[in-house]
Amino acid sequence: MFNRVAAFKNTNCLRYYTKMTANRPHITPNKYFTSNNTKDVWSLTNEAAATAASNKQNKGRDLINLGQGFFSYSPPNFAIEEAQKALEVALVNQYSPTKGRPSIINSLRKLYSPLYGQELQDDNVTVTTGANEGILSSLVGILNPGDEVIVLEPFFDQYIPNIELMGGKVIYVPIHPPKDMDKRIVDGKDWTINYEELAGAFTSKTKALILNTPHNPIGKVFTREELTKIGNLCVENNVVIISDEVYEFLYFTDSYTRIATLSPEIAQLTLTVGSAGKTFAATGWRVGWVISLNPELLSYVSKGHTRICFSSPSPPQEAVANSIEDALTGDYFEAMRRDYIRKFEIFTSVFKELGLPYTRPEGTYFILVDFSKVNVPKDYPYPEEILDKGKDFRISYWLINELGVVAIPPTEFYIKEHEQGAENLLRFAVCKDNEYLEQAVERLRLLKPHIRG
Amino acid sequence: MFNRVAAFKNTNCLRYYTKMTANRPHITPNKYFTSNNTKDVWSLTNEAAATAASNKQNKGRDLINLGQGFFSYSPPNFAIEEAQKALEVALVNQYSPTKGRPSIINSLRKLYSPLYGQELQDDNVTVTTGANEGILSSLVGILNPGDEVIVLEPFFDQYIPNIELMGGKVIYVPIHPPKDMDKRIVDGKDWTINYEELAGAFTSKTKALILNTPHNPIGKVFTREELTKIGNLCVENNVVIISDEVYEFLYFTDSYTRIATLSPEIAQLTLTVGSAGKTFAATGWRVGWVISLNPELLSYVSKGHTRICFSSPSPPQEAVANSIEDALTGDYFEAMRRDYIRKFEIFTSVFKELGLPYTRPEGTYFILVDFSKVNVPKDYPYPEEILDKGKDFRISYWLINELGVVAIPPTEFYIKEHEQGAENLLRFAVCKDNEYLEQAVERLRLLKPHIRG
Repeated sequence: MFNRVAAFKNTNCLRYYTKMTANRPHITPNKYFTSNNTKDVWSLTNEAAATAASNKQNKGRDLINLGQGFFSYSPPNFAIEEAQKALEVALVNQYSPTKGRPSIINSLRKLYSPLYGQELQDDNVTVTTGANEGILSSLVGILNPGDEVIVLEPFFDQYIPNIELMGGKVIYVPIHPPKDMDKRIVDGKDWTINYEELAGAFTSKTKALILNTPHNPIGKVFTREELTKIGNLCVENNVVIISDEVYEFLYFTDSYTRIATLSPEIAQLTLTVGSAGKTFAATGWRVGWVISLNPELLSYVSKGHTRICFSSPSPPQEAVANSIEDALTGDYFEAMRRDYIRKFEIFTSVFKELGLPYTRPEGTYFILVDFSKVNVPKDYPYPEEILDKGKDFRISYWLINELGVVAIPPTEFYIKEHEQGAENLLRFAVCKDNEYLEQAVERLRLLKPHIRG
Repeated sequence: MFNRVAAFKNTNCLRYYTKMTANRPHITPNKYFTSNNTKDVWSLTNEAAATAASNKQNKGRDLINLGQGFFSYSPPNFAIEEAQKALEVALVNQYSPTKGRPSIINSLRKLYSPLYGQELQDDNVTVTTGANEGILSSLVGILNPGDEVIVLEPFFDQYIPNIELMGGKVIYVPIHPPKDMDKRIVDGKDWTINYEELAGAFTSKTKALILNTPHNPIGKVFTREELTKIGNLCVENNVVIISDEVYEFLYFTDSYTRIATLSPEIAQLTLTVGSAGKTFAATGWRVGWVISLNPELLSYVSKGHTRICFSSPSPPQEAVANSIEDALTGDYFEAMRRDYIRKFEIFTSVFKELGLPYTRPEGTYFILVDFSKVNVPKDYPYPEEILDKGKDFRISYWLINELGVVAIPPTEFYIKEHEQGAENLLRFAVCKDNEYLEQAVERLRLLKPHIRG
């Protein structure tokens, strides 16, 4: 490796070839990271999978990974081609305007104007580095230390540090699971909000509520009635709605309602977050956006984004701009929904066969399956860090090790006190090609002897 | 536009086609943005340029934009090709590990091990969404509210909100300009730190110092002696050094010193930030990294990054990984330095002709030129927001309007109380092709009649 040293002869830093051995001084990091230093579900699951890949049971077969929600396939050809073309223009390789490239802002206006029932303007759209940074930018834009943010539980885990790092306080309001979900296939509407409970969560310090529809991990699409109740409570309390709608084009219900379209009053309080990663199977492109009918409110999101990432990657923005145009000329979105309905048909067939109940997927590419009937041994050699977590972590660990199937334990999306409601569930991601899902079905059939009669 | 409505007939949000007219409720945003709401230099300069492009004087000629540091040309062919190839692999379009793809971590280890004089390991490298987010991740990783961060002045403007948004306090320490820079061409070493002044800035609350070498906007490459003094002060005070070295491969001095290589004690405190955007003329790819010989310290940067962007764009990471490999097989870095020496020769020729002094560029692609000798009218029709700023904003505005040349007023990189030292300077960016620079020279010759004898 050091034979290139000559090439760097002008640098004068080749002083010590041996490992430096200075004692490490004690640097106190951000307290947030020392008080939240347990491994997250992604690390735990990925590490368990890495170890289990070569264990006795998995010898001679590949792991089936339905854990993290990444696609097993490429973005559509037109999107790849647009991305390759984008790179050939000199300026597309340079900084974009912080609010996004004119091309993508224009395409997003075209895409969303019919969905919002009005002509969106440039200042109704701002581009972010993935939806993740879109949510963080929204929070950075509006939160002051001590502000409270209502989060419906279960929640996407990233919301919590995003709020707390900005000095905000999370107020958890549960989406109550159906009591009999261990006995029957339930629907999204069976997961319910107690609106008195929600109303009671608002205080004079409440600055925002984070909504997620279609909902990860439940797969629930909030109904117009539910959204109206939530939206009106936010209007009464003058609270910003950060509506995480990254799965907005993946709904399998008859209709999909955007909360920002329910009333002008709700619209003025709403920041809606979208994602090219979910929409074009390109989670690694890191292109997201925030839409708001309130340009002033949105301007603070842009200011936050400017200070976080300055600007978002340019070639993917150009590619997404052109991909939206391409998608709008055909039936891309409807075809994608049809594809996912098929994927869920394939995948749920095994649970029907086995008699394992689940929440019927109304949206997203996730499904929550109830494992109450599966005999998961108590005395399996679970590592300490798995035993410290909810029962679902043990189910997940056992499933990886015994069947070679990776799924996510959903109690990670709950605070400790409330995780009981989800401790028999596992979340599977079906954003995989159909053949892979068929392999998954075959593998999951091996559960049969472990199921209580 | 609404003829696509039919395609979205399943959505039930097409309720009101007319502009919503609800009164906007008052939402208090993050106070940081209401107390820092003056337009920044980039907006002011770009807006002035947009207006001036079609004024009387600029009719029939293009603006010459040497303002923001974006390249007028493409990344090298090998980098574009690597980027296009990367898109063809399904998984390269999906999420990367939060610390970066194995390929780029490996390439960065290869690139930097000889420069650090030791074999770097995976945990010495973390990838970020541009150097900008690398600096923010470093600050998020280590700052607690009330912590102080020493910033040398002039500073890259983004440092300040990055520190203050995390509840940190900025302590400014000046790099003193040479007293006679209006009379002669000066060197980087003529811009000096008073080390007693610097030592006096450390308190028990000091958590970090941000260093920038090669320095934007001065073009100064800090010497080994200077870096040793700064580094030792940080060691004495147990203070983290965030070393912004995004222009590290653009130095024109005999040697370039990395502060992290000066002693094991300094190394253990240093986080060094690098940039693919600057290194491969691809500022829009948003790939940066942080290197540290202290894996524990670096782990907090990774944790910060995970909560900011989760992961960085994947195809550009893969492209940068392969581009580094390509660059290392040839003399890419030396050739780039030779190219830039030529660019500065072309560009500085006009200032020599005109007798306008400048700071001799030792690194970066910026040059500070002293306009004291230029008769810039006091009673020009400057907009109010320009009059509110330092004198250099008036020089810049006049230059855009009279000559059609865009440069950046550097007092933006100072706090109000200290901006006097830079009020006769303008910063020009030479990351443009040579022909463009020759046009710039021709245009700047028009300054001649405005120069005091």
